[in-house]
Amino acid sequence: MKNSAVLAGHNWAPATAGNYSIRLPDGLIAITVSGEDKGDLGPHSVMTVDAGGKATDHRKPSAETLLHIKLYEHYPGCHAVLHTHSVASTVLTRRYAQLSHLTLTDYEFLKLFPGIASHSAKLEIPIIDNSQDMQALSAKISPLLSPDMRAYLIRGHGLYVWSENMTLARRLTEAVEFMLSCELELRRERNEPIADL
Amino acid sequence: MKNSAVLAGHNWAPATAGNYSIRLPDGLIAITVSGEDKGDLGPHSVMTVDAGGKATDHRKPSAETLLHIKLYEHYPGCHAVLHTHSVASTVLTRRYAQLSHLTLTDYEFLKLFPGIASHSAKLEIPIIDNSQDMQALSAKISPLLSPDMRAYLIRGHGLYVWSENMTLARRLTEAVEFMLSCELELRRERNEPIADL
Amino acid sequence: MKNSAVLAGHNWAPATAGNYSIRLPDGLIAITVSGEDKGDLGPHSVMTVDAGGKATDHRKPSAETLLHIKLYEHYPGCHAVLHTHSVASTVLTRRYAQLSHLTLTDYEFLKLFPGIASHSAKLEIPIIDNSQDMQALSAKISPLLSPDMRAYLIRGHGLYVWSENMTLARRLTEAVEFMLSCELELRRERNEPIADL
Amino acid sequence: MKNSAVLAGHNWAPATAGNYSIRLPDGLIAITVSGEDKGDLGPHSVMTVDAGGKATDHRKPSAETLLHIKLYEHYPGCHAVLHTHSVASTVLTRRYAQLSHLTLTDYEFLKLFPGIASHSAKLEIPIIDNSQDMQALSAKISPLLSPDMRAYLIRGHGLYVWSENMTLARRLTEAVEFMLSCELELRRERNEPIADL
Repeated sequence: MKNSAVLAGHNWAPATAGNYSIRLPDGLIAITVSGEDKGDLGPHSVMTVDAGGKATDHRKPSAETLLHIKLYEHYPGCHAVLHTHSVASTVLTRRYAQLSHLTLTDYEFLKLFPGIASHSAKLEIPIIDNSQDMQALSAKISPLLSPDMRAYLIRGHGLYVWSENMTLARRLTEAVEFMLSCELELRRERNEPIADL
Repeated sequence: MKNSAVLAGHNWAPATAGNYSIRLPDGLIAITVSGEDKGDLGPHSVMTVDAGGKATDHRKPSAETLLHIKLYEHYPGCHAVLHTHSVASTVLTRRYAQLSHLTLTDYEFLKLFPGIASHSAKLEIPIIDNSQDMQALSAKISPLLSPDMRAYLIRGHGLYVWSENMTLARRLTEAVEFMLSCELELRRERNEPIADL
Repeated sequence: MKNSAVLAGHNWAPATAGNYSIRLPDGLIAITVSGEDKGDLGPHSVMTVDAGGKATDHRKPSAETLLHIKLYEHYPGCHAVLHTHSVASTVLTRRYAQLSHLTLTDYEFLKLFPGIASHSAKLEIPIIDNSQDMQALSAKISPLLSPDMRAYLIRGHGLYVWSENMTLARRLTEAVEFMLSCELELRRERNEPIADL
Repeated sequence: MKNSAVLAGHNWAPATAGNYSIRLPDGLIAITVSGEDKGDLGPHSVMTVDAGGKATDHRKPSAETLLHIKLYEHYPGCHAVLHTHSVASTVLTRRYAQLSHLTLTDYEFLKLFPGIASHSAKLEIPIIDNSQDMQALSAKISPLLSPDMRAYLIRGHGLYVWSENMTLARRLTEAVEFMLSCELELRRERNEPIADL
């Protein structure tokens, strides 16, 4: 899987972090299994679940499958979900522990997002606090999902991105991570309180 | 295309960012199409336009084709134009939002530029504000183009570099990006106002 | 050896730094020899020593073999030890020269470690001062080894990680290094005394 | 040439920067030619000069050939010289414009250098000011060359490293660059005057 190797090459899925899924034509979801290196996927690294998240074989899906399922429910046009972990997303969401979203503006890359025609638009990416309770995480994120949204962040954890297909989702991930790297650098001089240290 | 893979390897063309062109012996311009990964170009990733920017087939050229055309008009010896996006160029041009150019001096790499024989020379790279109106961008940059110039920056957006051929343009891009990475590090201690945050 | 190439790709074993070992089914330890590039291991790059660290051929094992032996002694379930050098581990352990351990919390990656079920747990990684006397280093680290421990740091030198097999040890190394990269960034604003400069 | 690809992979020879040489058994020096990418050397990328720096064919050797020749003269055991350009070496030597050498201590890597048995030793790497006059550069560096020295820096320009063979020189380059990356990070909080900005 070429896209997964690209993501691993950026170090956005170290160890066994991250999980990726696509919605198949029959409505089943193919999703990566837990506990494998996401940059080196083989034929047994992916399993299928139904639209409710129930496995079609005996394997137990990743706990975070629920978050993928919720995105497919909300976005009928969405056929690919990528969840990655990067140093920039981890650091930014922890450093600004008081923020409920990250506002990105003045980036040419914003034009990749639906409804945005100019770099001067504002893209708000929600940040939700991390939890090991996927029902709780899902309940926090669901009310925030708006039609043009394509990305959210989990604090100290990582990024979710979704789109019409895997190539577009991978490109949105690259665009968001590029902007996060810029924000990390641009915000360095700021002396905002660092709440979580 | 080897040079495009090198640029992508540096993460200077994430998502579908960037566009590259060459002037062909017959005066037509071969330029990358919009909406494709610039690190993985195939035979259909490039189209041709005439010296006025009009496509030779039914495809619509990238909006930024106009900026390439203007460079070929001004520089008869120019046969290759590279437009890349890097974190360093984005951050530096936004952090110093009041600057109309970036002055580079005391770099051995300066000797790669025409008319420069010593690291102690000063290279001024113009910075123009970003716009979605290519005619407006072009009108801003045209009066600044001087005979020995080989690079300009668009604020929060990226870098344009041009040269006699694609290998030389790729090397100038590497040289400018190296110096921008140094500047980002050298200027970190400065407490200049950060106008755009 | 795929895992060694991954580690070298992250620049965690520059020059001839680092050494890696596995415990073989017969109880012997296969360990990399000194003075070779750890990212490019060949058939002669590994030698075997017995459980006491004595070579099974005429070659002299690396001085740090003793530290590997001690880990295999303390952890009967441990079959792989990785010792790497990174910029982040070197800088963090030197910058906080007064710290005897680094506390990692609020990272999703913590769940890879035994006994940890939530990102909100605290993982304490011991830091011991560097020494060229391996007996002294070993005497310092031995009393600190607790059952669930999988990593320690040597100040200004590098990281030791151990696990059930080489793949798991490589993943723990990736997880620790990811968190160290985050800590380096998160702690940058702090004005703690820098004792070793 | 494997070693040159390793150096290019670290971005220590962007554009056509850097030059590499070896002393052949017959006393001639094989040295890379100017104006080529040092990460992609072909059969025509290397020329030979005699012990006085005079080309054995019609090609004009790189101006910096003189600096290689001087090292071979001073160090009869030296058979390989590497000259690289990195962001870290450029930034550190410019930021500390008043320093005539960089002192490295408390690094495990110091043990790779002749005469050093412990991380607690001090390695002094001379820094000389950049010049386009190779005779002048050579005259500045010659009196500083001591028997155990294996590296010097040219301010805002790059690093020279030499050793018994190319593999050892490449490893010393990796060790010095690793320590420079650490120094860049460790010295960030210091508020020394930045003389050259």
